[in-house]
Amino acid sequence: MELTVAQLAKRLDAKLAGNTDGATRPITAVCPIEAASESEVTFIVDDKHKALLKKSRAGAVIVSARVEGLDKPQLIVKDVRSSLIEALSAFAPRLKAAPEGIDSTARVADSAKIASGVSIGAHVVVDDGVEIGSDTIIAAGCKIGENSKIGANCRIDSNVVIYHNCRLGGHVVVQANSTIGSTGFGYSFIDGAHKLIPHNGGVVIEDFVHIGANCCVDRAKFGDTIVGAGTKIDNLVQIAHNVVIGKCCLIAALSGLSGSCRLGDGVVLAGQVGLADNIEIGDGTMVGAQAGVMNSIPAGQKIAWTPAIKAKEAFRIVTLVMRLPKMAEQLKKLSKRTDRLEAAKDDKE
Amino acid sequence: MELTVAQLAKRLDAKLAGNTDGATRPITAVCPIEAASESEVTFIVDDKHKALLKKSRAGAVIVSARVEGLDKPQLIVKDVRSSLIEALSAFAPRLKAAPEGIDSTARVADSAKIASGVSIGAHVVVDDGVEIGSDTIIAAGCKIGENSKIGANCRIDSNVVIYHNCRLGGHVVVQANSTIGSTGFGYSFIDGAHKLIPHNGGVVIEDFVHIGANCCVDRAKFGDTIVGAGTKIDNLVQIAHNVVIGKCCLIAALSGLSGSCRLGDGVVLAGQVGLADNIEIGDGTMVGAQAGVMNSIPAGQKIAWTPAIKAKEAFRIVTLVMRLPKMAEQLKKLSKRTDRLEAAKDDKE
Amino acid sequence: MELTVAQLAKRLDAKLAGNTDGATRPITAVCPIEAASESEVTFIVDDKHKALLKKSRAGAVIVSARVEGLDKPQLIVKDVRSSLIEALSAFAPRLKAAPEGIDSTARVADSAKIASGVSIGAHVVVDDGVEIGSDTIIAAGCKIGENSKIGANCRIDSNVVIYHNCRLGGHVVVQANSTIGSTGFGYSFIDGAHKLIPHNGGVVIEDFVHIGANCCVDRAKFGDTIVGAGTKIDNLVQIAHNVVIGKCCLIAALSGLSGSCRLGDGVVLAGQVGLADNIEIGDGTMVGAQAGVMNSIPAGQKIAWTPAIKAKEAFRIVTLVMRLPKMAEQLKKLSKRTDRLEAAKDDKE
Repeated sequence: MELTVAQLAKRLDAKLAGNTDGATRPITAVCPIEAASESEVTFIVDDKHKALLKKSRAGAVIVSARVEGLDKPQLIVKDVRSSLIEALSAFAPRLKAAPEGIDSTARVADSAKIASGVSIGAHVVVDDGVEIGSDTIIAAGCKIGENSKIGANCRIDSNVVIYHNCRLGGHVVVQANSTIGSTGFGYSFIDGAHKLIPHNGGVVIEDFVHIGANCCVDRAKFGDTIVGAGTKIDNLVQIAHNVVIGKCCLIAALSGLSGSCRLGDGVVLAGQVGLADNIEIGDGTMVGAQAGVMNSIPAGQKIAWTPAIKAKEAFRIVTLVMRLPKMAEQLKKLSKRTDRLEAAKDDKE
Repeated sequence: MELTVAQLAKRLDAKLAGNTDGATRPITAVCPIEAASESEVTFIVDDKHKALLKKSRAGAVIVSARVEGLDKPQLIVKDVRSSLIEALSAFAPRLKAAPEGIDSTARVADSAKIASGVSIGAHVVVDDGVEIGSDTIIAAGCKIGENSKIGANCRIDSNVVIYHNCRLGGHVVVQANSTIGSTGFGYSFIDGAHKLIPHNGGVVIEDFVHIGANCCVDRAKFGDTIVGAGTKIDNLVQIAHNVVIGKCCLIAALSGLSGSCRLGDGVVLAGQVGLADNIEIGDGTMVGAQAGVMNSIPAGQKIAWTPAIKAKEAFRIVTLVMRLPKMAEQLKKLSKRTDRLEAAKDDKE
Repeated sequence: MELTVAQLAKRLDAKLAGNTDGATRPITAVCPIEAASESEVTFIVDDKHKALLKKSRAGAVIVSARVEGLDKPQLIVKDVRSSLIEALSAFAPRLKAAPEGIDSTARVADSAKIASGVSIGAHVVVDDGVEIGSDTIIAAGCKIGENSKIGANCRIDSNVVIYHNCRLGGHVVVQANSTIGSTGFGYSFIDGAHKLIPHNGGVVIEDFVHIGANCCVDRAKFGDTIVGAGTKIDNLVQIAHNVVIGKCCLIAALSGLSGSCRLGDGVVLAGQVGLADNIEIGDGTMVGAQAGVMNSIPAGQKIAWTPAIKAKEAFRIVTLVMRLPKMAEQLKKLSKRTDRLEAAKDDKE
C-alpha cells in the first residue's frame, strides 16, 4: 500500500500544514519517531516525543496541533490515537480474505446452522447443534463443541478449542490455541480421592470481547462463566469456573482469576495478577502487575502488591521495606544510646 | 433431564422430609442457593448458607440434617458434597457419545494397538507403536507420538499433543491444547552457545490423573517425569523435566514446578505458585497462592509467601510489614526522646 | 542402542582408565549416579557427586580426571558436560525419521516454496507465499500463515500456529501448541470502547532459537518482535509486541515480557519473572524467579524480588523482613526503657 501525504491527510480527515511541498511524497507505513524513514509517517501522542521530532527523518507527522518550526508536512487531527489506528489500518499488510464456505477437509455436523458469509477452514470440526453467525471466520484446526453458538463477525483463529454449550456474541476474536469451556478445577475429597464436581454450566463471551492466544476460560459448575462486552484479554490468561467479568475490562498476560471472582466494568489487571476465589473487584479498579488480591476491593481503586493494598500505600511500604537496613541500624544505635543513659543513671544512684 | 423431587431423592438415596407436598415437583437442575428457582434443587454445605435458605425459591434442598421450620422438600443425605456430585451428574447436559472407532480423517499407524471401544476423532494422528486402552476417547486434532501408551477409559481432549514414549494410566483426563512430553529446558553452555541436553526419558501419568487445558508436562532427561495417581492439575501449569509428583495432589492454575522437584502425596499448590528446582515438598503440605518455594519443606506444613515460610509466620510478618510506617514513626519519636534525655543528662553534668 | 564401555569411550574420544576389565560390558543408557544400574553409564560434574561414586552400581563413569580407588571403568574426557550430551545422543531412543515430502492430508498453497528434504505432516496448513527451508520438519496440525518464512533445519512441532509475515531463521525449534505472531495487547480507549491498535509488524526468530510448548510471541505494532540467535525459551512464556531479545538469552517458564522490553545478550530470566513494558535489561543480567522488574537494569547484574533490586541487597532485606517480629519486640522494649528513663528524670526534677 502506498499513499501520498495528501491522500493520507484526506483519509484521516486531517488538515495538512507545515511544509506542504512534501504533500506528494509517497508514504508506505506508520513508524515510531526514532525509526521512521522518509517514506513513513510518524505521530506524536505526548510532549516527550515532540523534542525528537526535529531530528526525525519521517516523511510526515500526525499531530493534534501545529508544531512550529518544523520543516516537514504535518497532518493535524482531532485525536492522534484515533487517527493512528486509521493510518495503521490504511497501511496494514494486505492478506488474502478467508474464503467463504466450508473447507472440504472440515467436518461439520448436519445439524449445525452456518449463516451466510461464514468461512470454515481446513480440518475444523463443528459438532451437532452448533450455530455460527454471518461472516464469522473459523480458522483451520478449530473444534467447536456440541450446541455452542458463535455470533456474527467473529474471528476464531487456528487450533482454538471451544467445548459444548458455550455462547459467543458478535465481533468476538479468540486467538490461536486458546481453550473455551474446559471443565473447571472443582473437586470434593471423598473416600480418599478427589472427585470431580460435574460442570453443568457453560461460558458466555459477550460482543466485542477479544481473547488472546493460549488462554483458558473454564465453564461454570452452575450457570455460566461470563466475559462482559468489550473486555479484552491478553495471552496465557486463566479464567476459572463461574468467574463473571464486567464490560470493557483489560486483563494482561499470565493473570489468573480464581473461581467465582466477579469483576465490575472497566477493571484493569496488569500482568501476572492473581485473584483469590469468590472476591469482587469494583468498577474501574486498577490492579498492578504481579499483585495478589486476597479480598474484595471497592470501585475506583488503584491497588498493588501481595497482599494487594492501595497502590500509594504499597509504594510507601515498599520504600520503607527498602529502608529496613537503615532502620535496623538506627534501632541498634538507639539501643546503645539507651544502654549508656541507663548506665549513667545507675552511676548516679 | 427432568426428575421429580421424589425421583431425585430415590436417586440420591435420600430421606425426603420437610414439606413433602412438593415431592412431585419437577426439577431440572442444581443451583446455588441465591439463584435457585422453583424448578431447581439447591444444597447446604455449611451453616453460612443455612440462613439464606428461608428466602430461597429453590424447589427442594439437599441437606445433611433436617432444617426445622422450612416450607420446602428436604432431601436428607449422608454427605452433601457426595450427593451434590450425584445430583449434578443426574442433570448434566446430555451430549452425544463419542463414536466408537477411528474417524476416516484420522491417521493411525498400522503398528498401533487400539483396544475395543476406543474413539479416535477427526484429524487425529497416532504414530507407530502407540497403544490405546479400551473405551478411551482421543478427541479431534490430537497427536500421539511414537510408542506412547494410553490406558483404558481415558479422555484426551481436542488438540492435545502427546510426544513419544509417554505412558498414561487408566481414567486419565487431559484437557484441550495441553502438551505432554515436550523436551525440557536443559542446556549446557559450551563453546559460546546453549547446547540442548538430550531428553532420553519419558513421562508417566498414573491412573485417575486430570490435567487441565494448555498445560505442559516435560519429558525427563533420564528416567521419567511422574504425575502420581489421582493428582489433579488445573490449567496453564508447567511441570518441568524429572519432576515427581505424588498421589492425590492438587495443583492450581499458572503454577510452575522446576526441574526435578519432588512432591509427596496430597500436596496442594494454590495458583501461581513457583517451586525452585530439586526441592522436595512433604506429604500433605499446602502452599499458598503466588508463593515462591526456595527450599525443601517437610510434610504437613502450611506455607505461604516468597520466599515461602510457615503461613502463620508469614501472616505475622505481613502484618508487621503493613505496620512499617507506624514503626518508622515510633523509631523517629524514640530517637527524639533519647535526644532529649541525653541533652538533659549533658545539662546536669 | 547398546555400546560396550570401550565403544562408548571411542565415541566420546575418552581415555579409558580404572578397572578396564569392564571394557566389554554392554551399556544401554546414561543415568544419574544414585539410580544407575550395571548396564548404565553415569557421570560426575562436581565433587558433591564424587562421594556417591563408590556406592554406585553404574557400569562405567564419565569423569574429567581419574578417580583413585574406584573399581569401575572410567571414561576420562575433557569436558564432562559436553561428553554427557554426546553420550545421551548415543543412547537416545530411536524414532522414525519424519517422512520427506508433503502429507496427503496437508493443505499447502500453490505459491508456497518448499525446499528439498522438508517434511510436512498430516493436517498441516501452509498459506500463500510461505517459504520453508531445506530439511525443516513441520509436524502434524501446524498452521503457517501467509508470507511467513521458515529457515532450514527447523523443527516445528505439532499444532503450532505461526501467523502471517513471521520470519524464522535456521535450526529453530518451536514445541507443540505454541503461537507465533498473534496480535499484541494494544488498545486505545476511544469513544467508550477499547479499540485495537492494528499490528502491522511481524516476528523475527533468529537462528538456533528454541521456543518451548504453549508459548506466545506476539507480532509487533511497527517493525518486528525479535528473538535473538541462540536464545532458548521455556514453556508457557509470554513475549509481547515489539519486545527485542538479544542473543543466547535463557527465559524460564511462565515469564512475561511486556511490550517493547529490550533484553541484551546472555540475559537470564528465571521462572515466573515479569518485566514492565519499555524497560531494558543489560547484557548478561540474571533475574531471579518471580521477580518483578519495573525499571531498566544495566548489564552484568544479579537482581531479584519485586520490585527487583540487586540480589545481594534483596537477600539482606528479606532477612530483615523475616526479623521484623524481633525488631518490633526490640522497639517495644526500647520504648519501655525510655519510659523508665524519663520517669526517673522527672522524679529527679
